[in-house]
Amino acid sequence: MERVRALGHPLCAGLDPHLERIPPPFRSGSMDPGHPATAEAVERFCVAVLDRLVDKVAVVKPQAAFFERLGWPGMRALEAVIAAARERGLLVLLDAKRGDIGSTAQAYADAWLAGDRADALTVNPYLGLDSLEPFVKAAEASHGGVFVLVRTSNPGARDLQGLRSDGRRVFERLAEALAPLVERCVAPRTGWSSLGLVVGATWPEESRRVRALLPRALFLVPGYGAQGASARDALAGFAAGPGGRLEGGIVNSSRALLFPAGAEDADAAGWERALDEAVARAAGELAAAAQEGPASGS
Amino acid sequence: MERVRALGHPLCAGLDPHLERIPPPFRSGSMDPGHPATAEAVERFCVAVLDRLVDKVAVVKPQAAFFERLGWPGMRALEAVIAAARERGLLVLLDAKRGDIGSTAQAYADAWLAGDRADALTVNPYLGLDSLEPFVKAAEASHGGVFVLVRTSNPGARDLQGLRSDGRRVFERLAEALAPLVERCVAPRTGWSSLGLVVGATWPEESRRVRALLPRALFLVPGYGAQGASARDALAGFAAGPGGRLEGGIVNSSRALLFPAGAEDADAAGWERALDEAVARAAGELAAAAQEGPASGS
Repeated sequence: MERVRALGHPLCAGLDPHLERIPPPFRSGSMDPGHPATAEAVERFCVAVLDRLVDKVAVVKPQAAFFERLGWPGMRALEAVIAAARERGLLVLLDAKRGDIGSTAQAYADAWLAGDRADALTVNPYLGLDSLEPFVKAAEASHGGVFVLVRTSNPGARDLQGLRSDGRRVFERLAEALAPLVERCVAPRTGWSSLGLVVGATWPEESRRVRALLPRALFLVPGYGAQGASARDALAGFAAGPGGRLEGGIVNSSRALLFPAGAEDADAAGWERALDEAVARAAGELAAAAQEGPASGS
Repeated sequence: MERVRALGHPLCAGLDPHLERIPPPFRSGSMDPGHPATAEAVERFCVAVLDRLVDKVAVVKPQAAFFERLGWPGMRALEAVIAAARERGLLVLLDAKRGDIGSTAQAYADAWLAGDRADALTVNPYLGLDSLEPFVKAAEASHGGVFVLVRTSNPGARDLQGLRSDGRRVFERLAEALAPLVERCVAPRTGWSSLGLVVGATWPEESRRVRALLPRALFLVPGYGAQGASARDALAGFAAGPGGRLEGGIVNSSRALLFPAGAEDADAAGWERALDEAVARAAGELAAAAQEGPASGS
């Protein structure tokens, strides 16, 4: 939050290296997912992205699936990308949506939150509160964070998260149940909790309801840009912070930044320029929406 | 199911290589999780387990977290263990509980279900039915299977899965919503669907309710043995198959097989003997329970 305040915008850059979209200067041969050279190409591409993001965003969010897709060389690339981001002073939120019970949850927490790995991890709450505890404990020990899926940005979020239960929705019941964990993880310096929530930009009304239930939880907001939500929608669950500027989490953009329209066949310099412009545009949009203050509907 | 019928029992051997429990003959140095030699030791241990399981069980279930815990060398070990299991004629159900949306779910499905990786994968349904579709499509293409978490074995399963919604529980609403996917994946040869469900042995009454909703879905049943459920509990959701024997899925046991009591300090031969006995005991218990037919309560 301190970095977001200093930058004046909550943009988080998602590192989703879709193989078929990686620009020509970074490609290697046929980009066969089974070939170790492909993972090396993905790593080079991601590090080039990181080089452009220094001092421009507070947080980057590598998407584990795109690395896992490449087998163990992909996981080696993911570790290298995480290390490169941290060397560049960028916080790393690993989007892996892990979740399991007992010692298995502990193994996932040790894998990604212990030691020098990610600063924070996304987790899936379907298995219940006891399944979250090892992640929260590991985050507390490493001064990291955990972001629990609450209301995801996809249409299918309705199927289970949107079921009615006792006059509310399942995602609201979950948010209520998370209150003690959120409170436990509040950092006195910023007033925000390092137990965060994933709340999609595509559901602004629901974001406001979750915010009312959990005023101190940071939101990771996916769905801005490529999934059709506006900057205003993305900040629906934010609240006025210092200077009246809206704050309350980070807003992710992946494809629109990494693969800017019109730069598909650009050379390295052309792609860098397009990426810089896309980052500046998204940061500017979000900064402006944060300055405007709460939407009239809230 | 054909292999389970031939063996006469539904035992699935879980490969959960807890570092601190790996027997002395397989250990390497201090078993530091950050050292590549540790992943090699884990691989050797798992392959030794596989060698004892040939023709004894139909399916093995590696737990991804314990490999991921070891960084990319752990993922390399996981790939080697999966390949070794398939070479030995064992089906591989990877327990990774992955879940995401759109192209990200597709990346996880490609990672584990495409080509020569696992025969089946566990997935988490919190993101909704659209998030399951890429996994089901990949399984159809590879003649593999998908097991959706429905009612997990841990106490916290109550928190979200057990919420009331419209007179039923969330896990029952989910089971109902899965019906079209289950039907779509029924294999004519056995009558069972390759869209399966995770239903914990610790909730026998709930297992019967899920079975009533989805008569053709295979169950992966965790919680037998170490988590306290009996063989009878584990088969609560099974139904009479050919010859009147109960069938309907596979029952997992991990720790009780891999780390049998009393063999903690055994040499390799002693550990092998203890493992063989533990496998024979669990298989025998489950075979007997399957022969007894439905419990009176069902």
